Amino acid sequence: MVGYGFMGMAHSQGWRNARSFFDPPLRPRLAALGGRNRDAAGELADRFDWPVVETDWRALVARDDVHVVDVCTPGDTHAEIAVAALEAGKHVLCEKPLANTVAEAEAMAEAAAKAREHGVRSMLGFTYRRVPALSLARRLVAEGRLGRLRHVRARYLQDWLTDPTAPYTWRMSRERAGSGALGDIGAHAVDLAQFLTGEFVSGVSAVTDTFVHERPLPDGGGTGAVTVDDAAVFLGRLDGGALASFEATRYATGRKNALRIELNGDRGSLAFDLEELNVLHFHDATADTVVQGFTRILVTEPEHPYLEAWWPPGHGLGYEHAFAHQAVDLLSAIDAGTDPEPSFADGLRVQRVLAAVEESHEAGGSWTAIPAPATAAETA
Amino acid sequence: MVGYGFMGMAHSQGWRNARSFFDPPLRPRLAALGGRNRDAAGELADRFDWPVVETDWRALVARDDVHVVDVCTPGDTHAEIAVAALEAGKHVLCEKPLANTVAEAEAMAEAAAKAREHGVRSMLGFTYRRVPALSLARRLVAEGRLGRLRHVRARYLQDWLTDPTAPYTWRMSRERAGSGALGDIGAHAVDLAQFLTGEFVSGVSAVTDTFVHERPLPDGGGTGAVTVDDAAVFLGRLDGGALASFEATRYATGRKNALRIELNGDRGSLAFDLEELNVLHFHDATADTVVQGFTRILVTEPEHPYLEAWWPPGHGLGYEHAFAHQAVDLLSAIDAGTDPEPSFADGLRVQRVLAAVEESHEAGGSWTAIPAPATAAETA
Amino acid sequence: MVGYGFMGMAHSQGWRNARSFFDPPLRPRLAALGGRNRDAAGELADRFDWPVVETDWRALVARDDVHVVDVCTPGDTHAEIAVAALEAGKHVLCEKPLANTVAEAEAMAEAAAKAREHGVRSMLGFTYRRVPALSLARRLVAEGRLGRLRHVRARYLQDWLTDPTAPYTWRMSRERAGSGALGDIGAHAVDLAQFLTGEFVSGVSAVTDTFVHERPLPDGGGTGAVTVDDAAVFLGRLDGGALASFEATRYATGRKNALRIELNGDRGSLAFDLEELNVLHFHDATADTVVQGFTRILVTEPEHPYLEAWWPPGHGLGYEHAFAHQAVDLLSAIDAGTDPEPSFADGLRVQRVLAAVEESHEAGGSWTAIPAPATAAETA
Amino acid sequence: MVGYGFMGMAHSQGWRNARSFFDPPLRPRLAALGGRNRDAAGELADRFDWPVVETDWRALVARDDVHVVDVCTPGDTHAEIAVAALEAGKHVLCEKPLANTVAEAEAMAEAAAKAREHGVRSMLGFTYRRVPALSLARRLVAEGRLGRLRHVRARYLQDWLTDPTAPYTWRMSRERAGSGALGDIGAHAVDLAQFLTGEFVSGVSAVTDTFVHERPLPDGGGTGAVTVDDAAVFLGRLDGGALASFEATRYATGRKNALRIELNGDRGSLAFDLEELNVLHFHDATADTVVQGFTRILVTEPEHPYLEAWWPPGHGLGYEHAFAHQAVDLLSAIDAGTDPEPSFADGLRVQRVLAAVEESHEAGGSWTAIPAPATAAETA
Repeated sequence: MVGYGFMGMAHSQGWRNARSFFDPPLRPRLAALGGRNRDAAGELADRFDWPVVETDWRALVARDDVHVVDVCTPGDTHAEIAVAALEAGKHVLCEKPLANTVAEAEAMAEAAAKAREHGVRSMLGFTYRRVPALSLARRLVAEGRLGRLRHVRARYLQDWLTDPTAPYTWRMSRERAGSGALGDIGAHAVDLAQFLTGEFVSGVSAVTDTFVHERPLPDGGGTGAVTVDDAAVFLGRLDGGALASFEATRYATGRKNALRIELNGDRGSLAFDLEELNVLHFHDATADTVVQGFTRILVTEPEHPYLEAWWPPGHGLGYEHAFAHQAVDLLSAIDAGTDPEPSFADGLRVQRVLAAVEESHEAGGSWTAIPAPATAAETA
Repeated sequence: MVGYGFMGMAHSQGWRNARSFFDPPLRPRLAALGGRNRDAAGELADRFDWPVVETDWRALVARDDVHVVDVCTPGDTHAEIAVAALEAGKHVLCEKPLANTVAEAEAMAEAAAKAREHGVRSMLGFTYRRVPALSLARRLVAEGRLGRLRHVRARYLQDWLTDPTAPYTWRMSRERAGSGALGDIGAHAVDLAQFLTGEFVSGVSAVTDTFVHERPLPDGGGTGAVTVDDAAVFLGRLDGGALASFEATRYATGRKNALRIELNGDRGSLAFDLEELNVLHFHDATADTVVQGFTRILVTEPEHPYLEAWWPPGHGLGYEHAFAHQAVDLLSAIDAGTDPEPSFADGLRVQRVLAAVEESHEAGGSWTAIPAPATAAETA
Repeated sequence: MVGYGFMGMAHSQGWRNARSFFDPPLRPRLAALGGRNRDAAGELADRFDWPVVETDWRALVARDDVHVVDVCTPGDTHAEIAVAALEAGKHVLCEKPLANTVAEAEAMAEAAAKAREHGVRSMLGFTYRRVPALSLARRLVAEGRLGRLRHVRARYLQDWLTDPTAPYTWRMSRERAGSGALGDIGAHAVDLAQFLTGEFVSGVSAVTDTFVHERPLPDGGGTGAVTVDDAAVFLGRLDGGALASFEATRYATGRKNALRIELNGDRGSLAFDLEELNVLHFHDATADTVVQGFTRILVTEPEHPYLEAWWPPGHGLGYEHAFAHQAVDLLSAIDAGTDPEPSFADGLRVQRVLAAVEESHEAGGSWTAIPAPATAAETA
Repeated sequence: MVGYGFMGMAHSQGWRNARSFFDPPLRPRLAALGGRNRDAAGELADRFDWPVVETDWRALVARDDVHVVDVCTPGDTHAEIAVAALEAGKHVLCEKPLANTVAEAEAMAEAAAKAREHGVRSMLGFTYRRVPALSLARRLVAEGRLGRLRHVRARYLQDWLTDPTAPYTWRMSRERAGSGALGDIGAHAVDLAQFLTGEFVSGVSAVTDTFVHERPLPDGGGTGAVTVDDAAVFLGRLDGGALASFEATRYATGRKNALRIELNGDRGSLAFDLEELNVLHFHDATADTVVQGFTRILVTEPEHPYLEAWWPPGHGLGYEHAFAHQAVDLLSAIDAGTDPEPSFADGLRVQRVLAAVEESHEAGGSWTAIPAPATAAETA
């Protein structure tokens, strides 16, 4: 695993819990942790029993005892590490967003397609797909319970930049992060819209904004320039005809981690909010009229996705549990010789939407079409 | 009062309740009800004790015992009736939307400005401004409790056309209704965004759609062509810099009357849903961190707007109560010689936004700027 | 109608709305308003167009143009007025609680039974039974949708006495009010438990308390002694075997009018809160497990009880609307020659529970059985 | 650690996470797992890296490398194991309820008091005290934010026995489990009421019931007799004067794990539901009236109890996280030489309430006083 920050911690917990709570056909063994900062990486290794720390990711990728490379670094390094790992024949799990640019994303999808020919698997870390309520949502849509889709509303609202004196971080740098709220959290909203509906966004009109342009450096010396968006609002269409509305912001005061998505079809609707992650709201328009309404499903029954491995009904899961689900599903796919989802191609499709948002914004909010996947790498 | 449909009933109840529960300085007396269909108008007159029915609105406007003309007809007749009434020196309350076109709206704002010089008042029926929770919301914004605004999200979701076999009505005809969800309910969303913030929408990008193009006529003979939008999604900017996102639809399955609006500022946030009309959610970002969150204010205390006249705390109001508040405020303004709000100019500003939405849609979703008010009539 | 306070206003509005929004077979005409204080009664009469004010209720009862006597006075006068009216051959609608003592309640039930033999109808104002969500709840229970009942939880929480300096009113006097929170609001909780289940409470254990014993008189001169309960907590059993838990209090800080009731049966559950009066929560335990949960039914569809007369879906009702439903149902019963519900006998059954609560409390919280109805008057 | 069931898993995860996410002054090392069934214990050991399995708990207690004994077995074995471990000088963490009888609980409190003289610590596993929202609730009460308490409502609602054909388990046996819903989940409700208020329950009136008396054995051969309560409803008083209402049931259809508690004081109120475990509702009655209401606090900020160790704001915790908090606090207390909470004496106080509930029930629901703690062991 490369990376030792917030994501390094979440992934470490995911691998460990996959083994303790599930019975994956391949049993994960933590081999080595990669991180340029040996002290910081060493502390994480100590907490989660990583036996080895490598300060050069190339050394980690070269190790014989490493079969899966889990990339948890900032977005600007994803392409280089993931492509190298795939070429070295290692299965790859890569944190989202796939890359900082469409070009990088295309190269990665290409590399994944090639590696696949040799049985090497790649998977992208849109982990929220494996929050049980959202896995259930996908199942209900796929079963046709919503009928013909008319509307999708997907927004990811946070508020950690509301205060104009909140300090500067690498996430505000276009070079490191690629974009701001758009790529960090908007990517989740777009991926979920595409995942839940099974359709692609075919075009957008967008406005983005940077409300605060300079922020104090955390070390107290001066300010850093914010070169990414603080917020992005866009509307679009899914290729099945539904109207879509998106938003990603770090200025939604009081909304801490509100990834909200609602789907309306002519037979039913679904609504979800990540701040209440064990709950899915489902409206069945085919039910008896007098008892129709949104049903608040507490997604903690053994019949619900992934829940059989955990606690009794009503004992909720937390943020990190989906990382175990992701690990289990990757191990199962490697064992079965199938392709895990989401693929790098799925990531590329999200990247194309993000790029179209920026393009639309730069063109003053005009409609920007997104081409349908054309190459084999994009449809994997 | 002209009109005997759903709105005629709501306004009749409003006038009556204004007298029974409040102490307006002018006491309303129901003079005459206008309606082309004498039977239908007569039935409403009988239910609410209107002493006279006039089948020609011109006769009604000409009556000496009529001092206020309340226009509750479909949008295509607003301009003609309202302008005639104002010219006859009658105060006018006109249902929303102000008109079906910008040109008509301009003429009405002009007429209102002229009439005002002679002490004749005009008011537009964006009644939701007087739902106590929304009146309170405006007060909190005006007091600066939200600080600098960053985001507005306003959507009005209904679902009565989800079923493709739902029958055809005049609301689906461009000639009668002007537009579909956009003017019928989107107008409320736009008005509230402008009212609550005290700012104007300065531009939009929009997509609208008609999902079902033919609907069965209610009499069973054939189908009617749907010539208006079923749904409209648009994003925009307020002239103070906030990003705005709007939606109006009749296809949001399970959402019956969900006029939802949220404002985020750097000091606080507000959220409201008309399906829970006695409640306002307020997040105070200046409070002690450990107890911050959205406070669910049950807006039924005597200290809340309009509530002193009604029931004890916790005894909620319903949909129709805001019509009484509207009537009281109009009577108070007439008595005081001041201008009631919302004005026809406010209606014109909403109309300009609706027109820009249609223009943007026709131009393929491109950004469409909305000019700032220029004439005296528009800034009234 | 006798009485001109809060209830006088609610009933006036109810009678008026019954005529304007419904088509009762008998059309109500406001005949005369009774009230000892001519000025206060006169003001209400003026607001609601009562043509006559009588300062002696006996004169009102004696009037030939009065066919229904609506008793809205404090509880200590109910028995005398209602019995006299019934004996004079007038139909009677009496506000709850039926009376201040079991003896009075028995006399009233007796009088109602006698009057009934001559086609004279009596009805008790447990108006909440006609809040549409609660009417629907009863319908669902009666249809067997909850199966065998195991639990009932009914509490009525208010907070207007939380502040120890809140002023003294007649509701704190045992002589006038009979009891405190118990009879004022606990009576509703007990009636709803019995109404929704169709069963009787067969015994209770109870504790009541008076937290503040002296309160300032509203005129500023000294204090009044609080001689009633501030709160009552009791548990009980329904005769069908379900366990029941009750509470009534004026000290539930932040709960303004929270009449909450939940029923659990082996096939389903229902939950309701009067602070959200247009909503009923229904859990169907026979549904597909993966989509089970509490469904939030917005009780505003034309298929819901009483709703066809009101506004379109999603346009909520308020507190006072149930008074119109009560009026319509009484008029329909009179016309049809059937017995309206709730009957005085229903009120007597509630009164017996309240008396048992007080008895249990005085006996230190011991179990107190409630006899099953024995006489004809009690089973009417 | 002794025990390998549901609780064995939760505690294993707790110890592991304590080390990975926190920095306890003493670093826990998993020494040995005790379990009579070597295969079942072995599987848990394998999943969580317990290096040794002991099939005799006496051997485990005797090991030199064991410093803390964590008792996760059914209640009938708690006393024997815990007392032996304390006498062997091992610190003890014991799952709730402390014991199946008051006599056992007294012996354990006695043993804990003795051991304490030698610096040996004991702690009881009322883990919910360390759900961050409830830790915060205690802090707010202790700070006086609720003022003088008037009401406590605590109920723990589950529904896994609603179906009369649900299979028999050891939890339905009086011999093994001591009691049914009462001791299993009612104990949590009582402990929280006492913990949050800092007061004791001084008396109760109670009714319990067993709705289904025979259940099919899981192996298909015949039925087992249910010898414990299915549900318990009781009311009581706290020694500070507040009225309390309790309920524990396994028949609340649709409520999966609804541990709900509400406190009302004359300055504020708190409400919590374990089905939404990251949320605390707080009503501040001293705030400006127009913005008063229940604030929905998402308890995921770094300023909230235990949260600094976990994820960013809005990224919720799950059921098991409180077990890590418990482990950390025990280790900190051992290191500091202080007494961890809850103590065995706290457990005894809960046990006395449970015993009073059963006594009251057997006496037909009569009031049963609970003596104040008398001995040193009980006030530890």
